[in-house]
Amino acid sequence: MERVLNEMKKHNLNQILVSDPASIWYLTGIANEPYERLWALYISDKCKPILFANRLFNIPSPEEKPDLPEVVWHTDSDDAVQMIADRIEKTGTIGIDKTWPAGFLIPLMEKCPGLTPVLSSDCLDDCRAIKDSDEIQKMKEASRINDLVNRRARDYVKIGMTEKEVASFIDREYVKEGAQGPSFTTIVSFGANAADPHHEPDDTVLKEGQCVLFDMGCKKDRYCSDMTRTFFAGQPTEEEAKVHDLVRFANEKAESLIRPGIRLSDLDKAARDLITEAGYGPYFNHRLGHFIGQTDHEKGDVSSASDKVCQPGMIFSIEPGVYLPGRFGVRVEDLVLVTEDGCEVLNHEDKHWKVVG
Amino acid sequence: MERVLNEMKKHNLNQILVSDPASIWYLTGIANEPYERLWALYISDKCKPILFANRLFNIPSPEEKPDLPEVVWHTDSDDAVQMIADRIEKTGTIGIDKTWPAGFLIPLMEKCPGLTPVLSSDCLDDCRAIKDSDEIQKMKEASRINDLVNRRARDYVKIGMTEKEVASFIDREYVKEGAQGPSFTTIVSFGANAADPHHEPDDTVLKEGQCVLFDMGCKKDRYCSDMTRTFFAGQPTEEEAKVHDLVRFANEKAESLIRPGIRLSDLDKAARDLITEAGYGPYFNHRLGHFIGQTDHEKGDVSSASDKVCQPGMIFSIEPGVYLPGRFGVRVEDLVLVTEDGCEVLNHEDKHWKVVG
Repeated sequence: MERVLNEMKKHNLNQILVSDPASIWYLTGIANEPYERLWALYISDKCKPILFANRLFNIPSPEEKPDLPEVVWHTDSDDAVQMIADRIEKTGTIGIDKTWPAGFLIPLMEKCPGLTPVLSSDCLDDCRAIKDSDEIQKMKEASRINDLVNRRARDYVKIGMTEKEVASFIDREYVKEGAQGPSFTTIVSFGANAADPHHEPDDTVLKEGQCVLFDMGCKKDRYCSDMTRTFFAGQPTEEEAKVHDLVRFANEKAESLIRPGIRLSDLDKAARDLITEAGYGPYFNHRLGHFIGQTDHEKGDVSSASDKVCQPGMIFSIEPGVYLPGRFGVRVEDLVLVTEDGCEVLNHEDKHWKVVG
Repeated sequence: MERVLNEMKKHNLNQILVSDPASIWYLTGIANEPYERLWALYISDKCKPILFANRLFNIPSPEEKPDLPEVVWHTDSDDAVQMIADRIEKTGTIGIDKTWPAGFLIPLMEKCPGLTPVLSSDCLDDCRAIKDSDEIQKMKEASRINDLVNRRARDYVKIGMTEKEVASFIDREYVKEGAQGPSFTTIVSFGANAADPHHEPDDTVLKEGQCVLFDMGCKKDRYCSDMTRTFFAGQPTEEEAKVHDLVRFANEKAESLIRPGIRLSDLDKAARDLITEAGYGPYFNHRLGHFIGQTDHEKGDVSSASDKVCQPGMIFSIEPGVYLPGRFGVRVEDLVLVTEDGCEVLNHEDKHWKVVG
């Protein structure tokens, strides 16, 4: 909470509304999934935090949790936004989480015409981007399971199987290993499907000679993993092997540069330059990576637009790719942890191309 | 699109930004899951619709889909909100979807200081609340599968099983029957867990004498079902049987009143009055129902705050409940379709209490 108040001061904010359930858990230890109902933590430099909660939520009582903030309860028939308006400062600015829906924000603005909303997720997200040792432990464990299941899926996939079959194998193995399940929809792409970075597994059947891409992650104790490996069902063509080597070099090049102080945009540039020099620049059409923690995508880009620098405790993905529409796609992705003097790659599965099936 | 432009006129809006993926699909037939990226359809009474899309999205080409709206593409390193600001009218008001995140809305307001955002989801949601015959057919099919799987789960559950085991049985049966899967996290609650209306299945083991609550729904061809039945593992106590009868009476009472013209709040009142007269009013702590369609919860409440009236084509849930903390809970839920002269209940599974296990 102290770190958040410090961040607020940096951003000239004296009041913010935190609504991201992961951020509220991070600050209070209260896990709650509000769906479309209102769930927000008001933080001000002038008073103690106030939690706005629906009576349907399962919140510990003050007896169970002595450090519970003040709770203002509402029911489905109350005007919950009015209850917030009644407690906040109605002039100046108020910080708002980037995910807070317009359905709450617009009525709040209508009720407080003298108040200007500004985005303040950074106050929380910049704290959350730097993992503490407990969080690092959890993320290492989620990546350990991910490596294990990736290896098993590599052994499991066979010519004739469908993408859906392999994806549900992966999902089941996660649960077997004690994870809650996948941290995002498991991607299994065969052949030309791999040229769509966000392809969802369907009934496509694996044929001899196709590429096989697994982009997968699991969630364990609230924290996520995320990795990609690309294989070939049979000997790859010369170009396929060359593209795979290129993507792996780009991944390794970026990882080799990571240390406190380097700009995230320079990591993106290093990987992108390699791919561009080889003539595949237009086919690497997404950012190099993203931050990750309680959700698969957290605030923080590893892209040409990221002017931030690496700091110890940051965990993000390094995932260059080359996608040749109608033909094949290759992506190689690890999670990395920035350390005091470099980085630790959280995935240990080998990255070279391999023949599977 | 014509119905939406009519709704806009009713709300004095000449421009709206539609961002809900289900609404964009409803209007354009383009299915896309944008996650945290920007995906919006601009509708104005002065120009043709404009779709704002990330290059990573899988959108049909104008060759594949001749009636594709104009598409303004962005990449992850573009300022996508600026692209919207460049194309809209910057004075007066603009309608915004209730789910549009502050992360887009606040920058748009900063770029267009003369523009006032107002909520306009109603323009879409009020169209979507009235199902056409094709949608009704799909929702009947999703409820047919739901009835079938509910019955199977009732036969499957046995003393000694965990909630999770039964929930994953239900999820598997959905897929076997050709549904995409559950439309929300399947709720299986045993004993006192059923007193929490939003309990998530855990490792609780079913014991003789406990109540057994299934709140479940599946998604088929984009459309959802949702139903609840409550059983007992062994003969219920006198109070348990009485509470179950009471909740079922409340469900049937509300359903018997449904016809075009009746207020949704009057349905809530009819069910609630019955439960209150029996002394259990404080233990029915949520609204009577919600609208449903492409997502499990769509705009539209059946609650004391709903001043809307029933219209043919509306589909919503009727789900009274009584929750006795630490003891047991009962909920009985159907989906109903408002017809020209009454209503059609989409669930056909019997609602009386039964002994299972």
